[in-house]
Amino acid sequence: MKVGVDYYPEHWDCEIWEEDAQRMQAAGITVVRLAEFAWSRLEPIEGKFDFAWLDDAIDTLGRRGIQVVIGTPSATPPNWLVEKYPDVLPLDNKRQPVYPGVRLHRCYNSPSLRRHTEIIVKKLTARYGHNPNVIGWQTDNEMIGNDSHSDAAISDFRLWLKKKYGDLTTLNREWGTVVWSGEYSEWTQVNTPLGGSPYQNPSFLLDYQRFCSDSVADFNRFQARIIRENCAGQFITHNLWGYPVVNDYYDLFDKMDFASVDYYPGTDLSNDSKSWIYHGALTHDLTRGIKRRNFWVMEQLSGTPGCWHPMSRTPYPGMIRAYAWQSVARGADAVVQFRWRSARIGAEQFWHGLHDHHGKPGRRFDEFARFSEEVRQLSAMLDGTTVVNDVAMLFSHEQLNALQIQPQSDGFDYLRNFKQIHHAFLRLGIGTDVINWTSDFSTYRLVVAPFLFLENDEVVDKLRAFASAGGTVILTTRSGVKNMTNVCLSTELPGGLRDLAGVVVEEYDPVGNDGQTLVLRGNFEAGCSQWCDILAPITAESVGDYTTDFFAGRTAITRNSFGKGVAYYIGTILDDEGYRALIKDVASDLDLAAFDNLPPGVELSVRSGSGKQLLFVLNLTKGKNELQLPVAALRSALTGEAITQPLVLEPMGVEVLLLQ
Amino acid sequence: MKVGVDYYPEHWDCEIWEEDAQRMQAAGITVVRLAEFAWSRLEPIEGKFDFAWLDDAIDTLGRRGIQVVIGTPSATPPNWLVEKYPDVLPLDNKRQPVYPGVRLHRCYNSPSLRRHTEIIVKKLTARYGHNPNVIGWQTDNEMIGNDSHSDAAISDFRLWLKKKYGDLTTLNREWGTVVWSGEYSEWTQVNTPLGGSPYQNPSFLLDYQRFCSDSVADFNRFQARIIRENCAGQFITHNLWGYPVVNDYYDLFDKMDFASVDYYPGTDLSNDSKSWIYHGALTHDLTRGIKRRNFWVMEQLSGTPGCWHPMSRTPYPGMIRAYAWQSVARGADAVVQFRWRSARIGAEQFWHGLHDHHGKPGRRFDEFARFSEEVRQLSAMLDGTTVVNDVAMLFSHEQLNALQIQPQSDGFDYLRNFKQIHHAFLRLGIGTDVINWTSDFSTYRLVVAPFLFLENDEVVDKLRAFASAGGTVILTTRSGVKNMTNVCLSTELPGGLRDLAGVVVEEYDPVGNDGQTLVLRGNFEAGCSQWCDILAPITAESVGDYTTDFFAGRTAITRNSFGKGVAYYIGTILDDEGYRALIKDVASDLDLAAFDNLPPGVELSVRSGSGKQLLFVLNLTKGKNELQLPVAALRSALTGEAITQPLVLEPMGVEVLLLQ
Amino acid sequence: MKVGVDYYPEHWDCEIWEEDAQRMQAAGITVVRLAEFAWSRLEPIEGKFDFAWLDDAIDTLGRRGIQVVIGTPSATPPNWLVEKYPDVLPLDNKRQPVYPGVRLHRCYNSPSLRRHTEIIVKKLTARYGHNPNVIGWQTDNEMIGNDSHSDAAISDFRLWLKKKYGDLTTLNREWGTVVWSGEYSEWTQVNTPLGGSPYQNPSFLLDYQRFCSDSVADFNRFQARIIRENCAGQFITHNLWGYPVVNDYYDLFDKMDFASVDYYPGTDLSNDSKSWIYHGALTHDLTRGIKRRNFWVMEQLSGTPGCWHPMSRTPYPGMIRAYAWQSVARGADAVVQFRWRSARIGAEQFWHGLHDHHGKPGRRFDEFARFSEEVRQLSAMLDGTTVVNDVAMLFSHEQLNALQIQPQSDGFDYLRNFKQIHHAFLRLGIGTDVINWTSDFSTYRLVVAPFLFLENDEVVDKLRAFASAGGTVILTTRSGVKNMTNVCLSTELPGGLRDLAGVVVEEYDPVGNDGQTLVLRGNFEAGCSQWCDILAPITAESVGDYTTDFFAGRTAITRNSFGKGVAYYIGTILDDEGYRALIKDVASDLDLAAFDNLPPGVELSVRSGSGKQLLFVLNLTKGKNELQLPVAALRSALTGEAITQPLVLEPMGVEVLLLQ
Repeated sequence: MKVGVDYYPEHWDCEIWEEDAQRMQAAGITVVRLAEFAWSRLEPIEGKFDFAWLDDAIDTLGRRGIQVVIGTPSATPPNWLVEKYPDVLPLDNKRQPVYPGVRLHRCYNSPSLRRHTEIIVKKLTARYGHNPNVIGWQTDNEMIGNDSHSDAAISDFRLWLKKKYGDLTTLNREWGTVVWSGEYSEWTQVNTPLGGSPYQNPSFLLDYQRFCSDSVADFNRFQARIIRENCAGQFITHNLWGYPVVNDYYDLFDKMDFASVDYYPGTDLSNDSKSWIYHGALTHDLTRGIKRRNFWVMEQLSGTPGCWHPMSRTPYPGMIRAYAWQSVARGADAVVQFRWRSARIGAEQFWHGLHDHHGKPGRRFDEFARFSEEVRQLSAMLDGTTVVNDVAMLFSHEQLNALQIQPQSDGFDYLRNFKQIHHAFLRLGIGTDVINWTSDFSTYRLVVAPFLFLENDEVVDKLRAFASAGGTVILTTRSGVKNMTNVCLSTELPGGLRDLAGVVVEEYDPVGNDGQTLVLRGNFEAGCSQWCDILAPITAESVGDYTTDFFAGRTAITRNSFGKGVAYYIGTILDDEGYRALIKDVASDLDLAAFDNLPPGVELSVRSGSGKQLLFVLNLTKGKNELQLPVAALRSALTGEAITQPLVLEPMGVEVLLLQ
Repeated sequence: MKVGVDYYPEHWDCEIWEEDAQRMQAAGITVVRLAEFAWSRLEPIEGKFDFAWLDDAIDTLGRRGIQVVIGTPSATPPNWLVEKYPDVLPLDNKRQPVYPGVRLHRCYNSPSLRRHTEIIVKKLTARYGHNPNVIGWQTDNEMIGNDSHSDAAISDFRLWLKKKYGDLTTLNREWGTVVWSGEYSEWTQVNTPLGGSPYQNPSFLLDYQRFCSDSVADFNRFQARIIRENCAGQFITHNLWGYPVVNDYYDLFDKMDFASVDYYPGTDLSNDSKSWIYHGALTHDLTRGIKRRNFWVMEQLSGTPGCWHPMSRTPYPGMIRAYAWQSVARGADAVVQFRWRSARIGAEQFWHGLHDHHGKPGRRFDEFARFSEEVRQLSAMLDGTTVVNDVAMLFSHEQLNALQIQPQSDGFDYLRNFKQIHHAFLRLGIGTDVINWTSDFSTYRLVVAPFLFLENDEVVDKLRAFASAGGTVILTTRSGVKNMTNVCLSTELPGGLRDLAGVVVEEYDPVGNDGQTLVLRGNFEAGCSQWCDILAPITAESVGDYTTDFFAGRTAITRNSFGKGVAYYIGTILDDEGYRALIKDVASDLDLAAFDNLPPGVELSVRSGSGKQLLFVLNLTKGKNELQLPVAALRSALTGEAITQPLVLEPMGVEVLLLQ
Repeated sequence: MKVGVDYYPEHWDCEIWEEDAQRMQAAGITVVRLAEFAWSRLEPIEGKFDFAWLDDAIDTLGRRGIQVVIGTPSATPPNWLVEKYPDVLPLDNKRQPVYPGVRLHRCYNSPSLRRHTEIIVKKLTARYGHNPNVIGWQTDNEMIGNDSHSDAAISDFRLWLKKKYGDLTTLNREWGTVVWSGEYSEWTQVNTPLGGSPYQNPSFLLDYQRFCSDSVADFNRFQARIIRENCAGQFITHNLWGYPVVNDYYDLFDKMDFASVDYYPGTDLSNDSKSWIYHGALTHDLTRGIKRRNFWVMEQLSGTPGCWHPMSRTPYPGMIRAYAWQSVARGADAVVQFRWRSARIGAEQFWHGLHDHHGKPGRRFDEFARFSEEVRQLSAMLDGTTVVNDVAMLFSHEQLNALQIQPQSDGFDYLRNFKQIHHAFLRLGIGTDVINWTSDFSTYRLVVAPFLFLENDEVVDKLRAFASAGGTVILTTRSGVKNMTNVCLSTELPGGLRDLAGVVVEEYDPVGNDGQTLVLRGNFEAGCSQWCDILAPITAESVGDYTTDFFAGRTAITRNSFGKGVAYYIGTILDDEGYRALIKDVASDLDLAAFDNLPPGVELSVRSGSGKQLLFVLNLTKGKNELQLPVAALRSALTGEAITQPLVLEPMGVEVLLLQ
C-alpha cells in the first residue's frame, strides 16, 4: 500500500523542495508523481534538453525515502513544437485548428507529434530507466479520445478502413451508404465526419469512434514499447479519466501493468443519496475490472476543484479521509493525492491541493495525514488482498458509443442506466465486478449483461454457455438490435438472445419520460420509463406485468430456465425500488447475502486474500448512520477493539472490520 | 383515391422485391413512390448510368397492378459529384462549406448542381416518361430553403437585386442603408448576409429570404420544365415539409399539378388537446390551399420517428388509421405511408415504417391494412368530392418571414398566433380554407386576415371591396406597420386598413408574457397577452375593453360596418377562450353552424361534390368521446348502418357519415 | 442644464427638418446630437466629401437656437472602406472576419481604420471647429471593447507585452507559463487568445483584456487629440455603454472633458423592487465618478426598445419624465433623449423615439415636454450644483475582468455583488460616490472596498492610511487573493489587508447557491451564500457568526479598530436584509442619516452647491408611495408650495425639495 502526492517542482522555487520533501516524509508519503506536463522544461527548444532540475527533484525526494513515478509529457506539446510543426495541432470538424493553451492541442495521428514524443520519451527513459528512486511510469495524461480531422487523421482513417473492409464495395455494403446517395466511388471521397452533424450514417460514425479510440490506444502502446525497452523493473500505467469517453479502456491499457484512475468525487453532498457517491464506487469497480486486478488512484480529491468554472464546495470535514478509504476498499493499492500544493500560477489555480496557496498545513492536510497513518498501520493486513465478488456486470464502451450516436428515447443513457443497476447492487451490499463484455465471466455466479444493443456472436455464445452450466444471467431491453457494424438485424428482438431469454419482443414503445408502472410477481408495484418492450414469452414465465397505458396486462419482465441456469429479461427501465426488489429476489435465489436496510450513502466492500478478509464500512455522508451487520463477533482493524452492534458511524465515518 | 407506400428497393436484396410487391397488392396498395434519393445508384460515376434495377423494380410492382411515382434524386448529390465539382456544396454564412452526408449538401444556385441535375432528370424522364406503370413525378424532396453564401449565391443575389431595384441609388433608398453608414457605392459591396447576425438591415434580410425562396422555386420550375417536356400524361408534384420555412409554397408549386405534403403528427398524445392534433388540420388546410384543390400525402406516419434524436412514443393503437383518415377528411386524394419497411441501414434506421426491422406484419401494419380496405370500400363515394368552406384564412409566408426577422414581443410568433385562430374555428367545427393572402377570396363569406404587418395595397383594396360587397373581415393587431420593402409606414396604424377597421391605434404596449385581461361585449372575460393596441374607434364600435394596467377601460377590439359588410379589428392576442367566444359571435351573425361542445381532439370535416356529402367525425385522442350532431337521420358510410345519437367514438374512432 | 434629443436628419427628407426644428424649439430643446453614424453620407466614396447636408442641418437647428454636438462617425466604417481595406474588419478568435452590417465591424488596431478615421475627423473638425452652433464633440459611439485577433491586433499585443515585461523570460515567469508547457521561446509564439477557450492561463487572459481596453482608450485619445487641436472652446465627450465591459472607463475618458452615458432603464416594472431601478442609480453614480464631476446623459429612454429582439413594455405613464429626473438628481447636467423620431428604416426601427413612426406627438412626447418645461423652471436653481456624498465605493474594472475569467463560485459575479451593496445604501437613503479604486478617497468618511481580488499595494497603503486617520473601511471576502499579474499570493488571506482587517481566513467554503445563515451582533439573523470565509480574528472582534453547516459558530464578519478608524471585513455574500442591517449599524456609528422605511423603488438624492441644496424624491414605481422625511419645513421647487408630511408620491411621482 502506497500513499503519495502529485507534485510540480517546476512550478516552485527550488529552495522549497527540500522542505516539501521533509514534510512529505513526515506525513508518511512514499510515492510522488512528477513531470507529466513538463515538456517545455525538459526540452526548452528543439533538441536541447534539461534534466538537471528533474535529477535534483528526484534526488531530493529520494533522500527522504520517497519513490517517484514519472509522467511522459506528451499531453502538452510545447510552443516551439507547435510553431515549427503545426501538424501537431488537431483540426476540429470544420477543419479549423485547435489552438494551444489548454492541454488538448495535439492530434494523436500527427507524425510530428509521434516523432517528437519518441525523442523525449527515449531521452527520459534512457536517463531514468535505471534510477533506483524511480519505480514506474505514467504515459501521457488522461487520454480521453481524439477528434481530429487533420490530413493525417483522415489518411489514417482511410488506412484503418482499408484494413477493416478491404475495398469500397464492401465498405459501401457494410455501412449501407446507398442511403441518401452516400456511396463512395473513390477512397479520396472518404473523410472523417466533417461538419459535426449528428445525422450522418451511424455505421460510419461508430467506426470513426473506434478509429479514434484505436488511435489513442496505439499512441499509448507506442510509448509503452519505448518505456518497456529502457526501463526493466519499472512499471507502466496510465491515469484514466472516467467514462463516458470514446476510448475503449480495455484496449488502452493492454500494454500497461495496471490501471490508474483520477478520482474527484463531487463535494456537493447536500443530497447524500445522489449519484456522486455511487459514481465513485462504479468508477472504482470499472477501473479494477480493466486489468482485473488492483489499481492505483493517481489523482485523489484533496480540495475543492474550480478553475475557469466556479469552485464547488470544499470537501466536508472527514471527506478527504473517507473517500481515500473508499478507493482502498474497492481495490486501490496506492492513493496519490492531487496535489501537494495548490498552484499559484496557471489555469488550475483554484483546483485545490492539500495545501492552500499560503502553503501552511490546515484541516484538509490533517485529514490526509490521518489517512496516511492509518494506512501505514493496516499496511500488512492489506498486502495481498483484493476484491473478489460473485457478480459481474458486463461493460461495453461500444454500446456506450453506439447508444450515444442514436439515443433511443428521452432519458435513455447507457452509462446512467448501467449505473442505476450497479447502484441497486451497491444499496443491497452486494459487491460487483465490472468487466469488459467480451472477456471471460465463467467464474461468476451472476452476470448482468445490460443493453447489448450491438450483438456480438461470441458474447451471445458465452452467455448461453454460462447459463447452460448453471449461471444466472440478467438481460435487458435494447439487446440484439444491431450487428457490430451498427446495422439493424432482421431477427426479432432480442436477436440471438431469444432462446436464452425465452421471449420475443412483440412491439415496443419508447415512452421516454412518460412514466409507467408495473407489478413484480403480482405484489410489488414499481415505476418504469424510457422504454417499454411488450413481451411475448415463449419458454419464459412473466415476473412483471405492466399496469398502465395500452400495454397494461402485458409482460414486462421474464424469467427463463435455460439448461442448469436461469435468464432474466427486463424489458424496460425500472425505477430504483424496482431494480432493488428484483435483484433482491435474484440474489435470494442464489443465496447471495443482501442487506435490506443499508442506509443511503453507506457502502460496504470486502478485500480478501492470503487468508485475510477485511470488511470496509464507509459512511460517505454528512449525517450519522448506524447499521446492524449480519456477522457475530467483530473487531476493528483500525483500533483493534471489539465492535458492538448496531455499528454507529459518525459523519464520514470509516470502519475496517476483521472478518477472520 | 389511392393508398400507397414509399419504398426503397435499392436498400434491399432484390430477392425480396417480389414478395414485397405481393404483400403490397394484398394490402390494397395501388401506388408506390421510388428513387428520390437514389442518384448514386442511377449514376454511380459521372456519365455512367444504371437504370436496370429501377426497370426491374417498376416492372415487379407493375405486374402486381401497382403504379409508380418517381422522385428526382437532386436532393442528394453523390460523392463523385461533390468531389469533382465542389461548388455543389452550399457555404454557410461564415463561408464554410456544408459537408455531404446529411441531405442538405447542395446549393440551389450552384451551376454544377444545375447542370448535373439536368442530365439525370433528362435521362430519367426520357426513360420513364412513357412507361405505363409510371403515373407521375415528385421533384426533389422537401425543399426547405436555401441559405448558401457561395460565390454563385452571392452573384445570383446581386442579379436578383439589380432586376428588382435597377441601380444602387434606388436600392440604398428603398432599404434605408444610410443607417449605420451601410450605403453601397459598388455592386461588389453587396453580399448575402454574411456572419449571420440578426442585427442587420431588415429590408436587406427580407429581400435575401425572398431571394432564397425564389432560388428554390426556380430550381423546382427548371425540373418541372424537363419533366413536362418528356412526360406527357404524367403528373408533377413535390412533397412539402410544413411551415415555418423560408419558402413561398405558392411560388414553389406554381408549375406543379397538385401539392403533396409529408405528414408526421406527433405521437405524444398525453395532452390530447394540445397543438399536435390541430397542427395536422392546419397543415392539411394549408396544403389544400396551395393549389386550391385536393392534394396527396406523400409521406404519412407509419411508426415512431427517431434517428439521431430520441424516438418518440409509438403510435397509439388506432392512430395510424385515424390520422390517415384525417388526411382524407381534409382533402387528400392519396395517402402514401412512409415507409414500407423500417430501414436497416443509414441515418433513419429508427424512423419506423409499417414493418419493424424483422419485416413481419404487426399491429401497425394491420391498422394500415384496415384503412386501406376501408378506402377501397368508400372509393366511389369519395371520388369527385373535395372540401368546400365558407371561411378563408389568409396566410402569408412574407409576414411569417418579416415577423421572424423582427419578433414583436415575447411570445409573438406569426405561425403560432395564426394557428391559434385556426384552432378556434376547428374547436367550433367550422371548416376553414387557408389560402394565399394575395389570392382571390371574393367567394367566401368570412375572411380572416391576421397580422398584415407588411402592407400590400392590392390586398388592402380587395379586403375593402370584399367588405363593401357584404363580406365579413377579421383584422388584427400588427397590421399596416410596414411597406413591402420592410420599411415602417408613416401612416397611423393600422395603415391603409384604417377606414375598413374604422379605428386608429393611439398607442401600443408590447406586453409580452405580462398577461392582461379584457371583457368582451361587457360580459365575457378573456385573457390577452403579447401585444396590446390601445384603440381609438373612429367609426367602429368597441366589442372588447381592457380591464387591467394603465389602459384599463380602453378599447381592445372593435366592429365596424363597412358598406354592406363588417370588419372586426382585434388589437391584441386573445387566449383560446377569448378567440372562441368572439368567433362564435361572428359565426352566429353569419349563420355559420358552430359547435359549442365539441370535445377537445374531435375534428369534423366535410367532403362534398358530385351530389355527395360526407361528414368525417374523427376522435384523434386516446379517450372515448361522444357528441350530439345537429343532423337528424345519419348513416355510416363505413358500415352502412344507421347511427344513433349521441355518437359514441372509441379512442381513435373514425366515423364517416352520409349526409345525403 | 440642457435638454436635447438625438437626431438623424440624414434619415429623413430635408423638407421636414424645418418643421422638426420648430417643434424642438417649442418643446424647449436646446441641444441636438448629430452625425455619429453618418460616415457614408459625409464621405460617400474615398476622398470625396459632402458636408452640405450637415451644414444645412446645423443651420436649420441653429436658427431655432438649438446647439449641436457632433459625433465622429468612426463606429461605422462605410462599405467602400471595408471593401478596399479589409484589415479594417476585426477577426474573431478563430480568425474569421466579423462582417459589416451591425456596427461592430472595426478593429481598433487596424492601421487603415486609424488612417481613415484621422482623415474624416480632421475634415469634420476643420469645418465645424469654429462653428458657433457647434458646442462640442462626441467621439465614436459606445466603445465597448475590442476582441480582434487580426494581424495588427496580434502585433500590437506583442508590442504591449514587450513594453510591459521587456523579455520572454520575465513574461514566462510572471505569467507562470511553465504550467502545461506553455513557455514561449520566441515572440512569434505569442498570440492573442485564439480559439476562445476559457481554460487558458488567467494571467495571459487578464493582460489580453487590459490590452483590449488600452487599444480602445488609445483610439479614443487619438481622436481627442485631433479634435482638441481644431476645436478650441468646444468640449469633448464620449457616450459610454454601462458595465460590464472590458474597458477601463477611467482610462477611456482621461482626455475627455466630462463623461456621458446612454441610459435605457428596463421598462418592465412589474417587480418594482427589482434590479432595473437600482441599476440606473449605480450607472449614474459610476458615470459621475469617472471624472468626479457632473455628466451628460447622451441617450435617454424615450420609448420601448426592441429591434432584432422582442420589444419590451412601453414606458409606463410618467416613466419618461421620472427617469429623466433621476438622471438630473444623480448629477446629469444634460438629458438628451434617444431619439426624436422612431426610425422608419434600418435595424433599430422598433427602438422607439419620442415620436412613433407616424410622427405625431403623443403621450410620451407630452411627458418629455413636461420634463423639459420643469427643467427650464428649475434651471437657475440647478446651476452650479452637484452631488456630494460621505461614502465612496471603490470600483475596479480589473477586479471585474479577473473575476469573470475565474468565477469564484456559483452565483458569484463582481458587478452583481457590487450592485447589491450599492443597493443597500440606496435603500437606506445614503448617497454614495462610485469611484476608481486607485483614485484618492481620503476626503470621504466611509469607504467600501469590496472584492479586492487583485492586490494593489498602493491601494492597500491608502486604505490603511485612511483608516489610521479615522476613516471607516468596509472590506469583503475574496480580497488579497492575487497579485496584479493574476497570480495567487502566498500570504494568508486577505493578504496585505490582514492587519487592517485584523483577521485571517482560516479556511473557505465556496457554498455557491447552498444558502447558509449567520447572526449579526447576536440578534439579527441573515442569509448568506456564494462564499463563506471561516475567519480567525486576530485583533478584530466578531460582529457576525455562522449558524449553519460545519462552520456553525465560526466568525463570518469582523470589526477592527485600526489607528483612529475602523475596518469591517465581511467574509461572505449577505442577503439584502443582512447588508442593510450591517450598513445601518455602520452608518449609525458615523452619524450618517439613514432611512429605515424608504419604500422599495423610492430614491433620494441631493444636489448642492453655490449655497443651494435640492432634495430629489423619486417614486420610480407603478404604485403610490408615501414617506416621512426627517426634515421640518419643506417647499417644492417644482410648485413653490409647502409640502405636508407624509409626502405622498403618485406613481412615477417626482418631488424636488428646497432644503435651504
